[in-house]
Amino acid sequence: MSNDAMKKITTKAREAARKLGILSTEKKDKILRAMADGIDSAREEIKKANEEDIAKAEKGGKNPAFIDRLRLGDKSVDGMCSMMKEVAELKDPVGDVLDRNERPNGLVVEKVRVPIGVIGIIYESRPNVTADCVALCLKSGNAVILRGGSDAIASNKAIYRAMRKAASKEGLSEGAFILIEDTSRELVDAMLKASDGIDLIMPRGGESLIQQVAEKSRIPVIKHYKGICHVYVDADADMKMAEEICFNAKAQRPGVCNAMETMLVHERIAGEFLPRMAEKFIKAGVVLKGCSRTREILTGRDIKKVKDEDFTTEYLDLILNIRVVGSLDEAIDHISRFGSDHSDAIVTGNTGNAGEFTRRVDSAAVYVNASTRFTDGGEFGKGAEIGISTDRLHARGPMGLEELTTYKYVVNGSGQVRT
Amino acid sequence: MSNDAMKKITTKAREAARKLGILSTEKKDKILRAMADGIDSAREEIKKANEEDIAKAEKGGKNPAFIDRLRLGDKSVDGMCSMMKEVAELKDPVGDVLDRNERPNGLVVEKVRVPIGVIGIIYESRPNVTADCVALCLKSGNAVILRGGSDAIASNKAIYRAMRKAASKEGLSEGAFILIEDTSRELVDAMLKASDGIDLIMPRGGESLIQQVAEKSRIPVIKHYKGICHVYVDADADMKMAEEICFNAKAQRPGVCNAMETMLVHERIAGEFLPRMAEKFIKAGVVLKGCSRTREILTGRDIKKVKDEDFTTEYLDLILNIRVVGSLDEAIDHISRFGSDHSDAIVTGNTGNAGEFTRRVDSAAVYVNASTRFTDGGEFGKGAEIGISTDRLHARGPMGLEELTTYKYVVNGSGQVRT
Repeated sequence: MSNDAMKKITTKAREAARKLGILSTEKKDKILRAMADGIDSAREEIKKANEEDIAKAEKGGKNPAFIDRLRLGDKSVDGMCSMMKEVAELKDPVGDVLDRNERPNGLVVEKVRVPIGVIGIIYESRPNVTADCVALCLKSGNAVILRGGSDAIASNKAIYRAMRKAASKEGLSEGAFILIEDTSRELVDAMLKASDGIDLIMPRGGESLIQQVAEKSRIPVIKHYKGICHVYVDADADMKMAEEICFNAKAQRPGVCNAMETMLVHERIAGEFLPRMAEKFIKAGVVLKGCSRTREILTGRDIKKVKDEDFTTEYLDLILNIRVVGSLDEAIDHISRFGSDHSDAIVTGNTGNAGEFTRRVDSAAVYVNASTRFTDGGEFGKGAEIGISTDRLHARGPMGLEELTTYKYVVNGSGQVRT
Repeated sequence: MSNDAMKKITTKAREAARKLGILSTEKKDKILRAMADGIDSAREEIKKANEEDIAKAEKGGKNPAFIDRLRLGDKSVDGMCSMMKEVAELKDPVGDVLDRNERPNGLVVEKVRVPIGVIGIIYESRPNVTADCVALCLKSGNAVILRGGSDAIASNKAIYRAMRKAASKEGLSEGAFILIEDTSRELVDAMLKASDGIDLIMPRGGESLIQQVAEKSRIPVIKHYKGICHVYVDADADMKMAEEICFNAKAQRPGVCNAMETMLVHERIAGEFLPRMAEKFIKAGVVLKGCSRTREILTGRDIKKVKDEDFTTEYLDLILNIRVVGSLDEAIDHISRFGSDHSDAIVTGNTGNAGEFTRRVDSAAVYVNASTRFTDGGEFGKGAEIGISTDRLHARGPMGLEELTTYKYVVNGSGQVRT
C-alpha cells in the first residue's frame, strides 16, 4: 500500500524533475519570488496552523526546546519570505561548464553541471525546513519530496499550500515539490526503498532519525551528523588570539554543530593560558571537564574529571572538555580518534605546524587561527545551505546549490569513431 | 566471527589510509614502479597460479568466455606492469586546490582535494582487477580492501604477493592494500556492514553481483551498471557520418557497456538510411530487431519484431534494436524511458537539435556526431579508469584518479571569530 502510494509520488516527481532540469533561471527565480509573496499572504493561515501544532505539542508534554523549534512567529514567516528572495538572487549552478578538454582526435569533452534529479528530505519538527528545501531544490533544478514529522504537519501543510498556490499560478507542475501528508513510519520505509524514484535522501534532525535513515535506506544518503569539534592551542599561539577563538568557538552559540566540544592545549603554554581562559569560561557559565594535568594547573577551581566518553559527546551546551597535550602529534591523534571529522582548528604562529595540522587533520573544515563556528554555507560564500555534510562522498561540509548538482559529459564531435 | 575479522582488516586499512593520504607523489610513484617490477619478476609464479584457477574452472564446467576473462598470459602480465608504470606517470590529484574564496572578513577558504579514505572493491573473476585497483587507489592516496571471487583466488594471491613484496621493501604498510583470502559470502556481508571502516564500495562484475551489493551495503556504493546506449540519427544527419558512427557504436566491440543497443532513426530519412545501414550490419553478422516501420522499410530482409523488453536488454552481442521515430522529442522520450543513462548520441547537422538533445538527455555522456564507444577514462583524458559510474552522486561516467578523491575545506585566518 505504502509502496504503491510512494510509486505514484516518485513518478510525478521524476516527470517534474525532467522539466525542472531545463527550466530557465529567470523562470525559476520568478517562481521563487511568487512563492515568497505567497507565504507572506498566507501568514495568518500559517500562524494559525502552527498554533494547532503547538497546542498539540504542549498537550503531549513536549519540552520547551522542542516547542521553540516548532514555533513560527511573524519573524519566522518573514525569514522564510526573505530566504526565498535571497535564493532567487543566487547564481544558478545548472549548466556551468566545470571542465573542457579538447582531445587529440578533435572531440571536445565538456563536464557540465546538471541537477541531481529527485531529492527526498526526511525531517523532524522545524517547519521552516519545508520552505528552505523547496527553495534550494527548485533553484538547483531538483524535484523534492518532503516528509516532515507529524508534530509539525499542520504548519508544513499550510506552508506547502501557500507555496503550491503561487507555483501553480506560474505553471510549475505538482511533482516539482511534494509534501507527503502521511506521517506513518511505513511510508518512510517505502520512501527509503524507492531507489528508482529518488536519487538522494537527506535526513535532517536528531541522531536517532539520522541513524535510522542511514540504516534502512537503499538510496544514497548524505548525512548531517554530529559535530565533535576541537580547537588546539599550539605552543606558538598568540595567547590573546587563542583566548578569543576558543571563547567564540564554545560560547557564542553552544547549541550548534560547529561549536567546540574539546579544547586541546600544548603543555608548554598550558600553565599560562589555562588559568586566564578558565576564568573567562567560568564567568560565562561554562562547565569545565579536564584531564589530570588541566586539573593540576587549575587547582582550586571546580574542574570535573574528563572521561573518554566525554570526548565523543556532542554537548550542544555550555560544557567543555580540556586536555593538555605534549605535542602537535598528540593533538592530531586525539582529533583522529575522538573527532567527528566536522570542524577543527589550530591556533598557532608557526606556519610549519599550521601546515602539518591542515594536511593531517582530515575534517570537512580545518581552520588555522579562526573559530570553528565559521563552518556554514553563508560564511563560506555559498549564499545558503541545505545542511552540513559529515559524509565523505559527493559533498563535504556546507552544502549549497552547487552541492545539490551533479554533472554529465557533453561530447561534441565531427564524425569520430573509435578504432 | 566474520565481523571480528573484518574489524581487524579495516582498522589496519584506516591506519594506513591516514599515512597514505599525506605520502608524497614521488614516494607513491616509486612504489608503483617497484610493484611493476615485482609483478614482472613473479611472472612465472603468477602464470602457474593462474593455471591452477583455470584447471579448476574447466573442471567446474565454466564457459569459454568465463575462462577467457580468468586467463593471464604473458600479454596480461605485461599489461599489468605497463599499467602500473602508466599510473606512476599520471598527475597526482591529491592536494589540488579546487576553489579559493577570500571572504570579506579576511578568511581564505580553500577547497582542497583529499583521498576518499578506505575503498572496498568486490569483484569477480578478472585477476587483473587486483593490480588495477591497487595502482589507482595507491596513486590517489586511498587504502584499498580487495575481495575477489573464489574462481581467481590463486591468481589474485600470486599478484598480491608480488606487489606486497615490492611495496614492503619500500616501507608501505600492510594496510595500504589488503587482499581478503576468505572468499565466503559471510565475509562479503561483514564487509558491506563495516561502515566505520570503509568509505566507499565499488562492485565490479555482472548484474547480479552489483544488485546484491547495492541491496545489502550500509556503505556508499558507486555502481558500474549496465549500458543501454542509443544513437539517434536525426533528419538532418550526414548519412555517411551516421552510417560510420552507428556501425562503430554497435560492431567495433559489441561486448562492452558503451556499445549501442538501440538505433533510433528519424522517419524523414529512414527510407534512405535504413536499407544501406541494414546491409552493412547484416554483412557484419549483426542480428536486427525492428519496429513495424523498420520492418516495412526493410521488407524482404530477415528483421525480427522488436519487443519492449528488448529495449531494456543489454545484449553485449551483435544484436541491434531499430526504431523509427517521428521527431527528436520521440527519440528523447524513448531514451528517457528505456535507457540506462550511460552513453547516448545524436547524429545531426542541426545545431538546435544537437543542443536540445544534449540538454534534455540526462546520461553520463551525451554525444553529438561521435560514437558512444568513447565513454572511457583514457578517451576522456583521465589516463586510466577504475570503472564507469552509472550512479548520479559523487562521480558519473568514467572514474579516474580525480573521482577517487573528495575534498576538505582549509580555512586560513588571522584570529577571526564569529559575531
